[in-house]
Amino acid sequence: MGGDFAPAHEVAGALEALRQRKNEFEVIFVGREKEILAEIQRHNAEGLAYSVVNADEVITMNDPPTAALKQKKNSSLAVGMQLHKEGKAEAFASVGNTGAVLSASTLILGRVKGVSRPTIAAFFPSETGVCLVVDAGTNVDCRAQHLYEFGVMGSIYVSRVFKYDSPKVGLLNVGEEKSKGTEVVQEAYGLLERSNLNFIGNVEGRDILKGKAQVVVCDGFVGNVVLKFGESVPGFLKSKLKQYASGNLIRTLLIGAARGSLRASLRDMDYEEFGGIPVLGVNGVSLIGHGSSSPKAIKNMVIKAAEVAQSQLNTYIEEAMATALRPAAVHTPAQ
Amino acid sequence: MGGDFAPAHEVAGALEALRQRKNEFEVIFVGREKEILAEIQRHNAEGLAYSVVNADEVITMNDPPTAALKQKKNSSLAVGMQLHKEGKAEAFASVGNTGAVLSASTLILGRVKGVSRPTIAAFFPSETGVCLVVDAGTNVDCRAQHLYEFGVMGSIYVSRVFKYDSPKVGLLNVGEEKSKGTEVVQEAYGLLERSNLNFIGNVEGRDILKGKAQVVVCDGFVGNVVLKFGESVPGFLKSKLKQYASGNLIRTLLIGAARGSLRASLRDMDYEEFGGIPVLGVNGVSLIGHGSSSPKAIKNMVIKAAEVAQSQLNTYIEEAMATALRPAAVHTPAQ
Repeated sequence: MGGDFAPAHEVAGALEALRQRKNEFEVIFVGREKEILAEIQRHNAEGLAYSVVNADEVITMNDPPTAALKQKKNSSLAVGMQLHKEGKAEAFASVGNTGAVLSASTLILGRVKGVSRPTIAAFFPSETGVCLVVDAGTNVDCRAQHLYEFGVMGSIYVSRVFKYDSPKVGLLNVGEEKSKGTEVVQEAYGLLERSNLNFIGNVEGRDILKGKAQVVVCDGFVGNVVLKFGESVPGFLKSKLKQYASGNLIRTLLIGAARGSLRASLRDMDYEEFGGIPVLGVNGVSLIGHGSSSPKAIKNMVIKAAEVAQSQLNTYIEEAMATALRPAAVHTPAQ
Repeated sequence: MGGDFAPAHEVAGALEALRQRKNEFEVIFVGREKEILAEIQRHNAEGLAYSVVNADEVITMNDPPTAALKQKKNSSLAVGMQLHKEGKAEAFASVGNTGAVLSASTLILGRVKGVSRPTIAAFFPSETGVCLVVDAGTNVDCRAQHLYEFGVMGSIYVSRVFKYDSPKVGLLNVGEEKSKGTEVVQEAYGLLERSNLNFIGNVEGRDILKGKAQVVVCDGFVGNVVLKFGESVPGFLKSKLKQYASGNLIRTLLIGAARGSLRASLRDMDYEEFGGIPVLGVNGVSLIGHGSSSPKAIKNMVIKAAEVAQSQLNTYIEEAMATALRPAAVHTPAQ
């Protein structure tokens, strides 16, 4: 109920996901039952595997995340996450208040054993496939240990959910040399280098779209800035093409004729195709989408949530945290 | 001499700048005289206002910046910067080793009075004109005072060189609210807010291309990542369009027909048009370009260097540092 177009886009997208995947999974709509049922009636939902659980309250985009969770115990977010916690749902997805979804994921589901800080990851397109940037905005201040764990969780997500064998992990930095960057980043380099990840060293801003790594590790400040910058590129290009064509018939016709090609090529830069970004390191499956998600973006997110649930992601993360080189052990004690 | 295609691109670009601007300024080529003269002979340089100053040594891209400056006292970089220092040239431009140019600018020219740290700024295109991101990679670890000074210098650069009246200054952050971001960024918000700049508050990654501000302040780590990311966008799109058209005659024809429009629209994302990024806060005019700059990029950089020299930039920066609200004064002394 927290999305900008709730529950219209949520209902339309989730029903389409069920239709497209032929009820491979079930969808539980959580929120104001009457509004949701009214919305469902606007679609042909016969035979689709959905149900509705009522929740009267709504956490809005402007609510302070943690306070709202405490006050609105019957919000669609709290009720939905609780269903997941209790095993009545195997995954949770929302396009509501990002901070509140993150808080609910951490507070209600709890952390995976061995994880210091849950994180949000984001997908970027790349010339060679997908690139997962971790952290995408959760932890603006990070220690080296956190960056190391982001690399571990990101690597497992990409290998389990996206089926990449031994994904390349890069550390986002201002240059390739080991000596570059802040002290924290330099220390993280050492931890990643000694891990059993497929660590390829530092990568730069340009390497994200080039696809040099499938997992790019950074703090949430940098990750958030580059994510939002990337998302603004298609809109910028559309605006520039429009300016260029303005008032010129031939240019307008040429651009119009090539529009399909352009749109198809730009699609990879469009967050709608990725359908939500995962909260990593929590005891469950929690995906977050943009507040303004289209039905298509929500459809993709619902399908992705089902895939993540099937991947046994957290079993692998817990195991990696327990058996991987523990960074605490790599510090040489001062003499 | 330090560029990837030196001295061929340097000579071609600078001569074209003289041709285009009808000898409004003079160009002094600094480097291995024989090589430069041989290159000049390949062009029609008659009547163009250039001269050559010999310098036998070259600082390469792989040289450690500060050490190279000490060892290679007769490098084209050191000799050229010294000419500027002595007033025999009014501006300096290079596409050589960025770190070495920055070091030479700081060590040879010195800092403008009142500036804590010189910085490199970078241009981004935007829907509303130009956007200058400061710092673009020089200072990866910054205190609030540094960010504040970047805002002051960036604002003066944009108003003096790009003729924007009272440019909007934004602080790059992960959200609009004042409480967002790291402690350093929050403190910088306070300093900028109390200054006499046209400070519009926090801006996000997406606001750069949208043109919400003409000056975007950040530390050099974030600035460098987003700069390199932005530069990789045109190449990514070309690659995607090629993939999309591959083996499909109609798509190939359509994209071919629209190529001119696309190129013109993408041009704004191409660093060649900006012709170099300024070193701000040093006692002189120093512009740095990509090692792989084309003659066109170098032509634009030479023209820009002349414009910056005419802008009296540093007089304004020194004045602002002396008269603007001194951040030291805004701290309430502990009781």
